[in-house]
Amino acid sequence: MPVDPVALTAELIRCPSVTPAEGGALRLLEGLLTGAGFNCTRVDRNGVPNLFARWGAKGAARTFGFNGHTDVVPVGDAAAWSRDPFGGEIVGAEIWGRGATDMKSGVAAFAAAACDFVRQTPPDGAVILTITGDEEGPGKDGTVALLDWMAAQGEAMSVCLVGEPTCPEVLGDMMKIGRRGSMTAFFTVQGVQGHSAYPHRAKNPLHALVSLLGRLTAEPLDGGTEHFDASTLQVTTIDCGNPANNVIPAKAGATVNIRFNDAHSSASLTERLQAEVARVEAETGVTVEMRVEVSGESFVTPPGAFVRLVAAAVEAETGVVPALSTSGGTSDARFVKDHCPVVEFGLVGKTMHQVDERVEVAQIHALKAVYARILQEYFA
Amino acid sequence: MPVDPVALTAELIRCPSVTPAEGGALRLLEGLLTGAGFNCTRVDRNGVPNLFARWGAKGAARTFGFNGHTDVVPVGDAAAWSRDPFGGEIVGAEIWGRGATDMKSGVAAFAAAACDFVRQTPPDGAVILTITGDEEGPGKDGTVALLDWMAAQGEAMSVCLVGEPTCPEVLGDMMKIGRRGSMTAFFTVQGVQGHSAYPHRAKNPLHALVSLLGRLTAEPLDGGTEHFDASTLQVTTIDCGNPANNVIPAKAGATVNIRFNDAHSSASLTERLQAEVARVEAETGVTVEMRVEVSGESFVTPPGAFVRLVAAAVEAETGVVPALSTSGGTSDARFVKDHCPVVEFGLVGKTMHQVDERVEVAQIHALKAVYARILQEYFA
Ligand SMILES: [Zn+2]
Ligand SMILES: [Zn+2]
Repeated sequence: MPVDPVALTAELIRCPSVTPAEGGALRLLEGLLTGAGFNCTRVDRNGVPNLFARWGAKGAARTFGFNGHTDVVPVGDAAAWSRDPFGGEIVGAEIWGRGATDMKSGVAAFAAAACDFVRQTPPDGAVILTITGDEEGPGKDGTVALLDWMAAQGEAMSVCLVGEPTCPEVLGDMMKIGRRGSMTAFFTVQGVQGHSAYPHRAKNPLHALVSLLGRLTAEPLDGGTEHFDASTLQVTTIDCGNPANNVIPAKAGATVNIRFNDAHSSASLTERLQAEVARVEAETGVTVEMRVEVSGESFVTPPGAFVRLVAAAVEAETGVVPALSTSGGTSDARFVKDHCPVVEFGLVGKTMHQVDERVEVAQIHALKAVYARILQEYFA
Repeated sequence: MPVDPVALTAELIRCPSVTPAEGGALRLLEGLLTGAGFNCTRVDRNGVPNLFARWGAKGAARTFGFNGHTDVVPVGDAAAWSRDPFGGEIVGAEIWGRGATDMKSGVAAFAAAACDFVRQTPPDGAVILTITGDEEGPGKDGTVALLDWMAAQGEAMSVCLVGEPTCPEVLGDMMKIGRRGSMTAFFTVQGVQGHSAYPHRAKNPLHALVSLLGRLTAEPLDGGTEHFDASTLQVTTIDCGNPANNVIPAKAGATVNIRFNDAHSSASLTERLQAEVARVEAETGVTVEMRVEVSGESFVTPPGAFVRLVAAAVEAETGVVPALSTSGGTSDARFVKDHCPVVEFGLVGKTMHQVDERVEVAQIHALKAVYARILQEYFA
């Protein structure tokens, strides 16, 4: 009997797996996959739950991988929800709950497709599922832990599909063939405190920050590249907390988040930031401490056989030609890309991370069909 | 017997008159002045204690005024003080305590000079002392209340000397013949929240603020005028409080303090700020709310007979020619100037508002002598 991806989504939503809680979600999948003949291993690291599942022989020449996550972001204002966020209720054409779009439905769709596929048409090769319980959190012991463990065990995927929501409007309208990189710079400016009436005796850290951030935001970083939108730089906070209007503060801080395409790297951008910091230090006499956190470099899986295969399957099942995009935030594809070609395709993500997250059940069925067709074509 | 201004300073320091507490300071002065033949009236308003004292006839053609305050700023870190901040201890050549320089010594010096003067050489005219208990606080019911009450009562000063500390290095090196104006603008920028990766769907209030503040701080407001230093504009805080690096915040605020000379008025500067606000609103689509608080307009008592008289007395007693300055923060002279010509002369203010506030007792004696000579010359 085929696995019902909607019933599986509902069961997964009922597992309260807010990062980093496992909530029963991986256990549920482990049971299902084991029943379908998958070899399952929990690859937990530092308290983060992760599940590795392989059908077929280790080291098979053709090994298709899926990647996804069962953890979800917090419900936010629980009182604002129209339905129980952990109810998994189906109301009319939609299924409701935290993770309905991001991405318990995606995991359910590929798990269901994989179980049916290996049962009905056992392929000459292997199918691997890597499912993490920490994609929404720090992500340091999630997919990375799975990939580290796989490398140590000699496990490998030939290609990988990440099941995150990717479609802006209708199912099929977009797949991701890469992602911009993301990095955050934290600036702490140390000046010299003083009286507002005597600025020549002080060094105003806010004036230095305004100058620094003014330079950083004055010009776009680039105009986009072949596969990428333009890079963006956003100041996400500036804080000083000085309540006294007649006092020039000693210290202030700011944070800048950069989403960058393949015209840059975190190293080239860090160098650029450091040059601006040096300039503002020289011009104003303040001291600027800069700390950089890199979430991921930009990457792209250039359109080729694998991308074409996925795009064709999407079009065949949905009737829509998917745009090949590298837009949006980051995903665990940024880790997978170091191991094998990776693309992303999933549902319409409109309500993800919001109150009243929900999705049409028809999309989940269609998504399973897309994944099933991808498996068939890959092993054909 | 002449009044000892150092003993009086010590007694005043022992009155814990942190704004707005009276602490016994005005009561002490009222007793002293009444004993010397002054007519005293407490002119309290909204809980703020103020003392009016007149010797001589109301409405006298020549009426010399002194103005000062007995309230003091908080002690700050009490444990950091080497001496009891309310002890009024004389250690070696110095007297210690909160208000030792700002400005219980100044009040003691002019009260002592005035008492001796009216006793020893009763003038043909009147001497008025206006002493407030709220100069360090909001100042809305302090000297302003005294001046309002005087106007209502038909009381007036021909000229007025404010006894605030004015000397940067040695007693006599500076008197103030005016002050720059001071105003504060509070900006609240309302943008549109969004994800850092999709800035085109958001409106970043921080980018608007950086642009606004960058324009405001790019060029000096002026290069100074005949009697004034250059105007200054300082950003005193910027606050947003957004902890999420992947979120463009909805709202941010900043405060700007302007010290301005007679090339500007609070109205002309407000107009200038409003024009920049309108520009940034038009360019970025955010909404900027601006609130302006005016502490005082700039003013100057142009060098003339009264300024010359005070300068000559300072030089005669100290051997130093005082610079005629309009530098520094604000003082209650900004209120007095609407009623009569006003100048300021007082001690070296180096430790004012600091831990271990103290001053040489010799300065207090010398200051009393300066004030006494000013009275003699004025009524000569
Ligand atoms: Zn997700
Ligand atoms: Zn003062």
